[in-house]
Amino acid sequence: MPVPASLRFNSGRLAITSSFTIAAPGYSDARLLAAIDRVARRLEARTGLTFARGPASDAAAATLVIQCQSAGKAIPAVDEDESYSLEVSNSQAVMKAPTVVGALRGLETFLQLLGGGADGYSIPAVSIQDKPRFPWRGLLIDIGRHWQPMVVIKRNLDGMAAVKLNVLHLHITEDQGFRIESKKYPKLHQLGSDGNYYTQAEMREIIEYARMRAIRVVPEFDMPGHTTSWFVGHPEIAGKPGPYQIERRWGIFDPVMDPTNEQLYKLLDGFLGEMAALFPDAYMHIGGDEVKGSNWKANPKIQAFIQEKGLKDNHGLQAYFNQRLSKILIKHNKKMIGWDEILHPDLPKDIVVQSWRGQESLAEAAKKGYTGILSNGYYIDLIQPTWRHYLNDPIPENTSLTPEEQRLILGGEATMWSEWVSPETIDSRIWPRTAAIAERLWSPREVKDVSDMYRRLAVISAQLEDVGLLHKKNPAAMMRRLAGSLSGDEYVVETIGKFLYVIEPVKGYKRGAMQNATQFTPLTRLADAALPDSAAARELDKATDELLYYDIKDIFRERGERVTAMLTSWGYAGHTLPRIIEQSPILGEALPLAKDLEEISQIGLEAIKYLNQRNAPSDEWRASKIARLEAAAIPKAAVELAIIQPIKELVIAVAEQEKRKTMSAEEWKKHVKALAAEKKKQ
Amino acid sequence: MPVPASLRFNSGRLAITSSFTIAAPGYSDARLLAAIDRVARRLEARTGLTFARGPASDAAAATLVIQCQSAGKAIPAVDEDESYSLEVSNSQAVMKAPTVVGALRGLETFLQLLGGGADGYSIPAVSIQDKPRFPWRGLLIDIGRHWQPMVVIKRNLDGMAAVKLNVLHLHITEDQGFRIESKKYPKLHQLGSDGNYYTQAEMREIIEYARMRAIRVVPEFDMPGHTTSWFVGHPEIAGKPGPYQIERRWGIFDPVMDPTNEQLYKLLDGFLGEMAALFPDAYMHIGGDEVKGSNWKANPKIQAFIQEKGLKDNHGLQAYFNQRLSKILIKHNKKMIGWDEILHPDLPKDIVVQSWRGQESLAEAAKKGYTGILSNGYYIDLIQPTWRHYLNDPIPENTSLTPEEQRLILGGEATMWSEWVSPETIDSRIWPRTAAIAERLWSPREVKDVSDMYRRLAVISAQLEDVGLLHKKNPAAMMRRLAGSLSGDEYVVETIGKFLYVIEPVKGYKRGAMQNATQFTPLTRLADAALPDSAAARELDKATDELLYYDIKDIFRERGERVTAMLTSWGYAGHTLPRIIEQSPILGEALPLAKDLEEISQIGLEAIKYLNQRNAPSDEWRASKIARLEAAAIPKAAVELAIIQPIKELVIAVAEQEKRKTMSAEEWKKHVKALAAEKKKQ
Repeated sequence: MPVPASLRFNSGRLAITSSFTIAAPGYSDARLLAAIDRVARRLEARTGLTFARGPASDAAAATLVIQCQSAGKAIPAVDEDESYSLEVSNSQAVMKAPTVVGALRGLETFLQLLGGGADGYSIPAVSIQDKPRFPWRGLLIDIGRHWQPMVVIKRNLDGMAAVKLNVLHLHITEDQGFRIESKKYPKLHQLGSDGNYYTQAEMREIIEYARMRAIRVVPEFDMPGHTTSWFVGHPEIAGKPGPYQIERRWGIFDPVMDPTNEQLYKLLDGFLGEMAALFPDAYMHIGGDEVKGSNWKANPKIQAFIQEKGLKDNHGLQAYFNQRLSKILIKHNKKMIGWDEILHPDLPKDIVVQSWRGQESLAEAAKKGYTGILSNGYYIDLIQPTWRHYLNDPIPENTSLTPEEQRLILGGEATMWSEWVSPETIDSRIWPRTAAIAERLWSPREVKDVSDMYRRLAVISAQLEDVGLLHKKNPAAMMRRLAGSLSGDEYVVETIGKFLYVIEPVKGYKRGAMQNATQFTPLTRLADAALPDSAAARELDKATDELLYYDIKDIFRERGERVTAMLTSWGYAGHTLPRIIEQSPILGEALPLAKDLEEISQIGLEAIKYLNQRNAPSDEWRASKIARLEAAAIPKAAVELAIIQPIKELVIAVAEQEKRKTMSAEEWKKHVKALAAEKKKQ
Repeated sequence: MPVPASLRFNSGRLAITSSFTIAAPGYSDARLLAAIDRVARRLEARTGLTFARGPASDAAAATLVIQCQSAGKAIPAVDEDESYSLEVSNSQAVMKAPTVVGALRGLETFLQLLGGGADGYSIPAVSIQDKPRFPWRGLLIDIGRHWQPMVVIKRNLDGMAAVKLNVLHLHITEDQGFRIESKKYPKLHQLGSDGNYYTQAEMREIIEYARMRAIRVVPEFDMPGHTTSWFVGHPEIAGKPGPYQIERRWGIFDPVMDPTNEQLYKLLDGFLGEMAALFPDAYMHIGGDEVKGSNWKANPKIQAFIQEKGLKDNHGLQAYFNQRLSKILIKHNKKMIGWDEILHPDLPKDIVVQSWRGQESLAEAAKKGYTGILSNGYYIDLIQPTWRHYLNDPIPENTSLTPEEQRLILGGEATMWSEWVSPETIDSRIWPRTAAIAERLWSPREVKDVSDMYRRLAVISAQLEDVGLLHKKNPAAMMRRLAGSLSGDEYVVETIGKFLYVIEPVKGYKRGAMQNATQFTPLTRLADAALPDSAAARELDKATDELLYYDIKDIFRERGERVTAMLTSWGYAGHTLPRIIEQSPILGEALPLAKDLEEISQIGLEAIKYLNQRNAPSDEWRASKIARLEAAAIPKAAVELAIIQPIKELVIAVAEQEKRKTMSAEEWKKHVKALAAEKKKQ
């Protein structure tokens, strides 16, 4: 994962034993050697074998031979050649790559091919020709709203490299924090960050760490809105007089730069010049999103300026600002990238539009000749299930773009906005879902089998732990913490674990509406310990499908038992939880959910009883159970029960079982699922 | 944990709500304020409440008032006053401490007092007068054999602070690595460390991090043996001509310094002078242990020197070396500390002897007027159960020392020697067992109820995760890694988990005899994922005790079910494991253990059947089952099954059940346990 562009399995396999070696007889450099060492150590950890250290000098005898032709770009770039080929036979694996970057990508593929059998470890014989579908495959991390220390960034860079992502987009400045040292304007970070910022030396360390993994670092300085933290030290560049304080709440706020003020451009020229020297990437992101016009409207000087320059309105003023910014970036040798809003005919064609609006907005830009990347549909902060992101294609099959226009769609970026993530929870919001997005951006469009994706994702998710990610470890620890003074009792922790397993944090922007939080709110509650895309829901869904929609008797019986076992276990967890909550008040908000869980599990079990008795329940039973399930479906404590839908199907299927006889299996499935998907207006 | 010197519970409790504040109206400084902030954040994480930031100005209204009198020593010292008192009433908690150090200790106590109930969080009303029994409560971390990066040291410092340990003893140089930058003799770290060393700036960062938590950092430079890594860059100071290479194996090796060489003292004066400036602690550890005489014996020049100076033998030569060292340390204003071997009448009385030999050796030193600390019995690398360390008292009840001599026993240190620990596994070897050692060294001697200790330890262990320790997280991830390509299958991972739960790594020095390992061996196998002091063993032991030795019928029935459930579940794990092993070769070594587990579980279940039927098995049955259990008790793959003993008791109890009628419950228990403890000669 991601699936290679072309992959053929041949017969045989290459044994991986303690005599495993890697030779790099072609072009080689420190970056390649470091990658070889990291891969060898990961292979050792997984196999328990000890290999000889360092690259092998005898290529003919080496297990894996890497034939690299060149270093690749000195600075990771969007037009990097990332291709490689890998031929594995019984006796040797040979990787060929035009650049070290291609070799790095190929090494991750090699590692993923490792398999184990009765006779030990091996790599299957394969012929792989691989290269990415899109050149821009990114992850945005918002370090503005919630600060993320270096260790978080580094382990996520390792995770990115493992799934062949190649752009770390750092959202560095926000209303809630200015996170980079400016030597020219030190009040920016000194007063705008609570001391949580990267020094330039630290940022160089991150950039180098990324470069070693062939990952670009694109910095974003969001302007002219989202800039409260700038104004704490420099109120003079704001559209409204100060003083300002760092924003602690979440939302879209009024503070905005004053584009009519020449002092602003002087500061931006100085600051962005400094940043242009710090960040080697060709692109610089200027944000440009969600500008509220209120402070511009209220400022007569600004309104007079709009009149005077014939800018029409606030939108025109922002376009003016972007043009000025564009000149500053050009002066400092950077190409501009910004959100949809920046798009304006006066800007040069080499800017990149990052679309939070969607494929259509992106296609429109492409038709005007602008390059773009997609982020709509990859908003991992919104807690959508993986398959949604996975099926979200930057260039959908039915695209109206010409092949030439399609080439302007450079790729996409998963966006980790950080209102609701702390260093403790961020990994579990990014991973493993982002691995599926990485596959969407690397692999051919045709690779889109959702159940196969989930099967592979489960394996990759465990492997991502080996590079230091905490997406599984931290939620487990949070679960223990939620047990409070009962954390020493294994049974209590297990019960909380079962409960967390069947819930998901609320999706979209619901949490903000349900919980009143600031930058200081501890993110250690139910909604933080719960994971996106509940595996329990998928598990129950699958078992229920097999129980209800297949006719094979054995499966029926076995799956009936499986569904019964799941519901019994979860129902019991719901039943037990209130006694735990009594001693762990942080879980108090889970009380109604525990009751819901107990009761909906009971409903499912009753339905199975009817099913086994071939006995139809009364209409009252059906109506009351559906009503109860719909009440249980209402989010509480910023989480929702993820297993409602398959239980609804059980209820409907037993209630409608007479109709089963009149339908084909397929019709029956559609019929039940459609009824179950209906929702009463709430 | 540790239990305070004096603790009285009063009636009532202090509510902890979102209006919680801490005021520090007495002496205050950056160290106190940082500790207050850390404690407030931990309290927020555990309660989910959001508190106002910063210390409160209105002491009368604050929830917790800290009355501190002074900063304490500028450099953490062995004679620091660490005492504090804490009075908690319904309306307020008041802590008084002569020094900030005492307040830091008290804050950890405060945090541990947090409880939850139906009406929310609270601290019980208590009166606590607390101070440590011993002033030197340490943890040794060996960064020589296996390098441990800064992040490992920092999170362990936080763990230490949480249980009131106050000395981090860094074992910095070893045959396998020279881990500190020397600006005067850069070849030492450049050639002796594979690049894995602390720069002086990094070490200062560690020392400051420790100081902020009122923890001393005592550096150890082990000499004249254990010094191979020194000689890679400086062969001229060795007792045998070079060249030398960094040692990769484990053991006690021949390379040793040449005490007859004046160049050696010149280098040591320079290097230790540099280190004396870097490490502010009053003490410097010179090791001095395990000097093999071979290279001295084989060197005629050295033998001639011994003759000439009348030093008698190699031991005399080491004493000579230590005297020279002692002068260098005195010159650089440091007191000497070393292992038992350094003890020699010529050394000044203010040296400290660290005893790996035991209480008697320590007492002898005290009788001669030397101060000492105990490490024998606290060797956490030897995988002993917690209770052994816990009951190991530096001054046993029956001590022959006078009160004055007793004062020379300063405390003790847990020793984390690192042959078998990587950054991934080290936390699970240190924690939670070291928390029990911390209690031994802080709390009164009379606090020694083992089962109460285990109850509290389970809670503390979960809380230690909150300061960043990975002792629970990492073993869980290693378990997933062991599942290999099946890691996506929850059932597989659970089965491996059950298996790991009932095994322990072999104890003492057995692993080295069973596995041929070097510094490069990946520590990701069975023995690395297994945990010391199996909770499963304690659980089965307790359930078996209640089943066999109590007469109350209800307990009998319930516990019979409990034992049956445990054995059934473990037996099934043993039965299933071979199929998992087929696809995950790293687990191959577990195959005989899986068979053992399946069969011994079956034996236990058979015994319970006999017990329930009040039916005595045949002598053949007994003999063959005991033999099978003893075969299963033989360690394999550097692990051992931890549940043999209670199953043996089951077998013996049913075989001997006729005798039950002739004995009191107590006699019967003794009788069965004694027979079960017998081992055939192997």
